[in-house]
Amino acid sequence: MLAQAITQYQLRVDNQLTQVIDAQIVTDDKLQAAMKHGVLFGGKRIRPFLVYAIGEMLNVPLERLDACAAAIECIHAYSLIHDDLPAMDDDALRRGQPTVHIAFDEATAILAGDALQALAFDILSQPIDGLTPTQNLAMISSLAKASGYSGMCGGQAMDLNATDKQIDLTTLTKLHKLKTGALIRCAVELPMIAANLPIEEQTQLITFAEAIGLAFQVQDDVIDIISSTEELGKPQGSDSDSNKSTYPKLLGLAGAQATAKSLIQDALSALTNLPYNSQLIAEFARFIIERRV
Amino acid sequence: MLAQAITQYQLRVDNQLTQVIDAQIVTDDKLQAAMKHGVLFGGKRIRPFLVYAIGEMLNVPLERLDACAAAIECIHAYSLIHDDLPAMDDDALRRGQPTVHIAFDEATAILAGDALQALAFDILSQPIDGLTPTQNLAMISSLAKASGYSGMCGGQAMDLNATDKQIDLTTLTKLHKLKTGALIRCAVELPMIAANLPIEEQTQLITFAEAIGLAFQVQDDVIDIISSTEELGKPQGSDSDSNKSTYPKLLGLAGAQATAKSLIQDALSALTNLPYNSQLIAEFARFIIERRV
Repeated sequence: MLAQAITQYQLRVDNQLTQVIDAQIVTDDKLQAAMKHGVLFGGKRIRPFLVYAIGEMLNVPLERLDACAAAIECIHAYSLIHDDLPAMDDDALRRGQPTVHIAFDEATAILAGDALQALAFDILSQPIDGLTPTQNLAMISSLAKASGYSGMCGGQAMDLNATDKQIDLTTLTKLHKLKTGALIRCAVELPMIAANLPIEEQTQLITFAEAIGLAFQVQDDVIDIISSTEELGKPQGSDSDSNKSTYPKLLGLAGAQATAKSLIQDALSALTNLPYNSQLIAEFARFIIERRV
Repeated sequence: MLAQAITQYQLRVDNQLTQVIDAQIVTDDKLQAAMKHGVLFGGKRIRPFLVYAIGEMLNVPLERLDACAAAIECIHAYSLIHDDLPAMDDDALRRGQPTVHIAFDEATAILAGDALQALAFDILSQPIDGLTPTQNLAMISSLAKASGYSGMCGGQAMDLNATDKQIDLTTLTKLHKLKTGALIRCAVELPMIAANLPIEEQTQLITFAEAIGLAFQVQDDVIDIISSTEELGKPQGSDSDSNKSTYPKLLGLAGAQATAKSLIQDALSALTNLPYNSQLIAEFARFIIERRV
């Protein structure tokens, strides 16, 4: 069921993204091609999956979620394009493909990221049938905060400053809650906004979102050690080689795996407190720590 | 009158920007310092000036314009930070100060730009007393389109691709209408949205905005030739040296000056068709082609 849903939502968001990029008034062909390269070639579409799956669980029609799914993927894609730049993580491969600055050039990669960020907010500023302008604004606020200084950008800055340094578990956890956790949390918040969810149910879903967001990062660190280069589409062990602090380094491999498992237990407990059919979401939570790529 | 108004609005927007950056939940100190370096140290504040001055002309209380003024300056500042990067224009000085990647480092400059863009949309997503959520959304849409692929980012990509090439006047004009013109036009659109301006008055003000936006760029090219390095805060002739097409190169210095003057005449004619006291705005339009920095 999960694999089928992932594929279905992936196709749906890719279709949205293609439409919205093709609908732009053409300025520079190369820049448009770079945006498409960054946002359309592969990727697990975890954030759009969460938007759609949580939304469906809360009985929100999928059409009301398309803008959120496309917008959050634009933000995620721009962050990968910029993170891969030589001045940041300096990665030449992403999803088995050349990164945007390799396939094009650095300047185009910077601009493609910038333009994808603008596009995310453009998408969310358009009227959505069945939602109020106040709901659009709440979505924009959620996405801007999750991706900006107090969210993803701040986390990436902390990550860069932590390279070649020994940091403790508290700092590593804070860093990842911002760098990857904030946007995953936002992927859960956006359909909650679309559903006008009661406050007590919001709390449970936020607990769920924060637990899976952190588990996702812990498992990424685990995968970086246990999986081969071929499976990852990037050099195996690239994070541990680059003198970045990781959960396995601080907790050992078994300790990191236990932490991920415990976080997923927390996430599943939060789901059981909700009056919805959370079977698909629960399956997804378990998948986070079972995946090897 | 103009100098006094420029200073007054400059102080007002700087105060807004300081407040909004200081109010962020702290993540990385260095990133916050880089954002402030990029957005707060100097600058003519042309776009906030237009937001406030056009807004006042249309009888919009200044408090309803603060968010627009701060948001558009965040976008302008992020674009300068990214344009100055080694992979783009590779400038070490801006407004007589080291650029962000020189004062900090490249990775921090990329992130500071990214975070300032997110902040712009965060600011405009907050409720504004006296405006409706639909007006906020129209402002966000205007700013996202002006700064994204079909606006500023597209224009910067065209500019980079035009370096070391001979381009014609039509292409140069299109490039600048996007690269700098789109955001100046947006600075006029935002207060029009706040004022709920009738459609026929919108047309006149858009004509004004497009004319001064282009005149501004033509005059920048002129200044690059006639002013000294000391006045500019960057090496004199840096644009002509770098094999970029400019208006003086295509039209001659006198031809470029005549073009700028003619554009300002168009702008002033549009103003005379409006039933408002446009004295300050007209003075500003004339200032664009009189300035030497």
